[in-house]
Amino acid sequence: MDFANMLSRAKIASYALMTATAAQKDAALLAMADALIERTPAILEANETDLKHARDSGMKRAMIDRLLLDEGRVAGMAEGLRKLAALPDPVGGADEMIKRPNGLLIAKRRVPLGVVGIIYEARPNVTADAAGICLKSGNVSVLRGGKEAIASNTAIVEALTAAALEAGLPAGTINLVEDTSRDSAFAMMKASGAIDVLIPRGGPGLIKSVVENANVPVIETGTGNCHVFVETDADLDRALRIVINAKCSRPSVCNAAEKLLVSRPIAERFLGLAAEPLRAKGVEIRGDKAACALIPWATPATTEDWYTEWADYILGVKVVDSFDEAVSHINAHGTRHSEAIVTENYTLAQRFLNEIDAACVYVNASTRFTDGEEFGFGAEIGISTQKLHARGPMGLREMTSVKYCIYGDGQIR
Amino acid sequence: MDFANMLSRAKIASYALMTATAAQKDAALLAMADALIERTPAILEANETDLKHARDSGMKRAMIDRLLLDEGRVAGMAEGLRKLAALPDPVGGADEMIKRPNGLLIAKRRVPLGVVGIIYEARPNVTADAAGICLKSGNVSVLRGGKEAIASNTAIVEALTAAALEAGLPAGTINLVEDTSRDSAFAMMKASGAIDVLIPRGGPGLIKSVVENANVPVIETGTGNCHVFVETDADLDRALRIVINAKCSRPSVCNAAEKLLVSRPIAERFLGLAAEPLRAKGVEIRGDKAACALIPWATPATTEDWYTEWADYILGVKVVDSFDEAVSHINAHGTRHSEAIVTENYTLAQRFLNEIDAACVYVNASTRFTDGEEFGFGAEIGISTQKLHARGPMGLREMTSVKYCIYGDGQIR
Repeated sequence: MDFANMLSRAKIASYALMTATAAQKDAALLAMADALIERTPAILEANETDLKHARDSGMKRAMIDRLLLDEGRVAGMAEGLRKLAALPDPVGGADEMIKRPNGLLIAKRRVPLGVVGIIYEARPNVTADAAGICLKSGNVSVLRGGKEAIASNTAIVEALTAAALEAGLPAGTINLVEDTSRDSAFAMMKASGAIDVLIPRGGPGLIKSVVENANVPVIETGTGNCHVFVETDADLDRALRIVINAKCSRPSVCNAAEKLLVSRPIAERFLGLAAEPLRAKGVEIRGDKAACALIPWATPATTEDWYTEWADYILGVKVVDSFDEAVSHINAHGTRHSEAIVTENYTLAQRFLNEIDAACVYVNASTRFTDGEEFGFGAEIGISTQKLHARGPMGLREMTSVKYCIYGDGQIR
Repeated sequence: MDFANMLSRAKIASYALMTATAAQKDAALLAMADALIERTPAILEANETDLKHARDSGMKRAMIDRLLLDEGRVAGMAEGLRKLAALPDPVGGADEMIKRPNGLLIAKRRVPLGVVGIIYEARPNVTADAAGICLKSGNVSVLRGGKEAIASNTAIVEALTAAALEAGLPAGTINLVEDTSRDSAFAMMKASGAIDVLIPRGGPGLIKSVVENANVPVIETGTGNCHVFVETDADLDRALRIVINAKCSRPSVCNAAEKLLVSRPIAERFLGLAAEPLRAKGVEIRGDKAACALIPWATPATTEDWYTEWADYILGVKVVDSFDEAVSHINAHGTRHSEAIVTENYTLAQRFLNEIDAACVYVNASTRFTDGEEFGFGAEIGISTQKLHARGPMGLREMTSVKYCIYGDGQIR
C-alpha cells in the first residue's frame, strides 16, 4: 500500500479507535500477545534474514545484539502487551468538569492524539512496544523502523495486525512503513494534518533530523547529559553509592550520569573515596585541572566533553567553588533530562530543585530512576526532554490530548 | 541589541523569572499598568506615526482600526495587566505528589515554559497582552509584531520594560524584536534551544508559515471553520437562537459559525424559520442543492466553500440525510476548533460529543463560548487547534510546563 493511502486509511481508523471501549482495546492487546507467541517461528525466521544481512554488511556487535530476537525476547514483547491490557484506560474520562455561571457544563475529556508516527532504529522490540502503547491509548500507530530490521518488523506487524483485525479493530490501526529509505522518514515529518504527532526514538542524529525537518508536532525524546553534584554538606557514603549507581548500573541509557561535580572543600576527601571504586568498575575519568590533580590516572577533559553524552564507562569530573557555579554549569551544559544533588543542607536542596531547569531534578537519589516503570506509569514510550506537552517519562497519559465537551441548554453569548 | 544577544539575555532572564515569587510578578504587572497610563501621550504619538504610514500606504479601514490606539484602548491594556495581577500564580505548586514503594517522593511541579516567542500582526494591544500573560506565568517574552505597528509597539515595550526593571525583574524579561522583516520572523522559527515555544497569532498565512518553517515547538492557534448541526429532534426555536448567535454576534472571530447543517426531515421548516432573520442581519447564504431549493435568494456553494473560514456575514448551508453524514462532513471539512449540535435526542447528543474531533464540542449552545474568559480562565493567549500540549482556549496554565522534583534519602536502582 502506498504511503498516501496508508495515511488516509489511518485517519479513518483513528475515528473508530477514538470511540473504542477499553474492553475492545484490551481484548485486541491480549490477542496480539497470543499472536506473537504463536508466530514466534516466523518472526525468528524473518529476524534471521535481518541478522544475515547485518553480519554480511559488517554491523557492530552491540548493534547486532539490539537487532537479535530469540524466543525469550518475543515472549517479553508479548508480556509487555499483556501488561498494557491490565492498565487502566487513559482516555474517555474527564480530568475536571466545571459549571459556568450561565449554566454551561464544561468537561475536559481525555481523548487520543489520533495518528501517532514513531520513527526508530534497528530495535524490533520497539515495534510491538510502540504499537501496543498507541493502541492502549486509542491511537493509530504509523511505525517506521530502521532498514536493518525490516524483515523482523514486517513479521511482527503481520502478527499484530491480524490479531487486531480479528479482535474487531479497523484495518489501519497499526501500520508499518515498508519503505525504509530516508524519503519515507521525510514524508512522515512533512505529513502535517495526516499525522498528529511524531515521536522519534533513537540516537541524537535521528532526533535532530526530525526536530529540524518536521512540520508535524514532535515530541523530542531522550538525550541525557546527566550530572550528580556532591555538595559540601553531602553524606559522603550515600554520595558514593549514588554516584556509582548513576554511572555504572547501566551506562548506555539516557538516565545514567555522565558528569560528577564536587564542591571544593570536600573534593579531595570524596574523590579519594570514589576514584578507586570507579576505576574498579572500568570507568575512565576525564577531569578539570583540580580533579586531574587529585586523581593521577584521570585525563584532562576538553570543552566539548562537558556537553557530551558518552553513554559509556566514562565520567567527567569537575571541582566547583560554589553552589551557584554548579547550577550554572548544569543549566549551561545539561540536556534538561535528569540532574541530582547529594546534600544534607535543606536550603541548598530546595534551591537545587527550584533553580535547575530539567525534566527530573533529584535530591539524594540516583538519576537512574527517570523511567516510566520507576515512576509507576506502567508503560513508557520515551523520556521527553522538551517542555511542550510532556516532560520526563511519557506514559499512557502523555499519549493523550483533551477535548472540551460542553453541555448546554440553549446558551447564547 | 542584535537578535543573538537578545536571545542569550532572554535565556538568562528566564532562570531568574523561573524562581520569581508571585508577589514580585504581580507588583511588576501593576507597575507596568501604571506605566502604560503615565506614558499614554508618548504611546499615542508613536501610534500616530504608525497610522500616518498606514494611511499613506493605503491600508484598508478594518486594518487601520486594529492598528489604532486611543486613551480608552491604552487604558484597556492597563486594565488587562491589572486583571492578570489579580489571578492566582499558575506556577510553583505541584499537580500531584506520589510516594513510590522505595520511598521516593515525586512531585509534578508546574514551572514556566521559559522563553516564549510570539509572532503577531498589526494589533499593538497584543503587545501588552502577550507580555503580561508571559510574565504572570513566569515566562520571558520575545515579541515580534507587524512592521505596521513598530512605533506603537516600541513605545509600549519601553513603558513595560522600564516598569518591570524598576519592580526588580531582570533586563530581558520582555523583549521586542525591532527588525520587522521576514528575516526576523524566520530567525525566531529557527531558534531551537534559545526559544522554548513559539505562538503565532494572526491570519492563516502567518500560522501556516510558522508551522511549516519552525524547528522550535509551535502551538498552532486559531482558524475556525465551525459548524452548527440542527438535528431532526432539535427544539427549533432554540436552534434558531443558537444559529443567529453563532453566526451574527461577531462574524469576524474564529469561534463564529461558518456552516449550518440541517437534517432533511426538518430542513424546510427550519430554513423557513431561519432564512429571513439571517437575511435581515445581512447574512449571505451559500447552499447545497437542497438548501438553494428552499431559500430562493441563496447562491450555490463551491467545493472550496465547505472548507473556508470567511470570518464574515456569509453562511454555508447544507441539508444532510443522516447523523452520520453530518459527523463525517464536519470531521472532513472542519478545522477542529468548535462544533455544535442542536438536538433533544440523548443518544445523538452523546454520539456527537464522542465522534466529533475538535477542541470544543457543544450540545445545545453557541460555538461563540470557545474563549478563555467564557471558560473562566481569566486570561487567554489564543485558541489552540492542535492536539499537543494545549487544545482549545489557552489560559495561564497552558503557558506552563512541568518538572518532576524527586525527594530521596539515598535511593539507588
